[in-house]
Amino acid sequence: MNVPPELLERFKKGELIPAIAQEQTTGEVLMLAWMNQEALEQTLQTRQVTYWSRSRESLWVKGETSGNTQELVSLSYDCDADSLLLQVHQQGVACHTGKKSCFHREVLE
Amino acid sequence: MNVPPELLERFKKGELIPAIAQEQTTGEVLMLAWMNQEALEQTLQTRQVTYWSRSRESLWVKGETSGNTQELVSLSYDCDADSLLLQVHQQGVACHTGKKSCFHREVLE
Repeated sequence: MNVPPELLERFKKGELIPAIAQEQTTGEVLMLAWMNQEALEQTLQTRQVTYWSRSRESLWVKGETSGNTQELVSLSYDCDADSLLLQVHQQGVACHTGKKSCFHREVLE
Repeated sequence: MNVPPELLERFKKGELIPAIAQEQTTGEVLMLAWMNQEALEQTLQTRQVTYWSRSRESLWVKGETSGNTQELVSLSYDCDADSLLLQVHQQGVACHTGKKSCFHREVLE
């Protein structure tokens, strides 16, 4: 599975692209993380979602240690080719706090 | 409605925060754009979603010219306080191409 040229252009400039993970079965938005070219290629090859960790500056196979992996169902990108949307099947929970989604802090309800 | 201190810290460092807009009624992820402090405050005050346009370097009231506005329903932020999730009611379509969602280019189906 090849990375589209519009995305490759961004990666070649050294940009990281924000990637939204959405649980395919429920529509719940689970988290936002970042991908470089290697992370995206590995994700497409393995179907196990892999991000680029900005803090550790390394590839990050989601759930590799916790078991809370994300199996890729489908992947799309937006009209400007500067963000990604991943439909996933989340094993367990997405958030390190133990909540299903990382978006659990309300500003406005 | 006050901006939480964790988010204020980021804005004070000059960071822009990615904001995901999700249609509240269907769960469809519509777009990803960016907010600075002013955009977030204006969004909370007016309940009309306002982003920061990185290309125009100015506030961008979504749909101001097209009529395709986003009414804010609820707003949350993630465990790292570095991204936002907006539940919205989208008037018309979110994408300038005429599609409902900006995420309409499939890498993998």
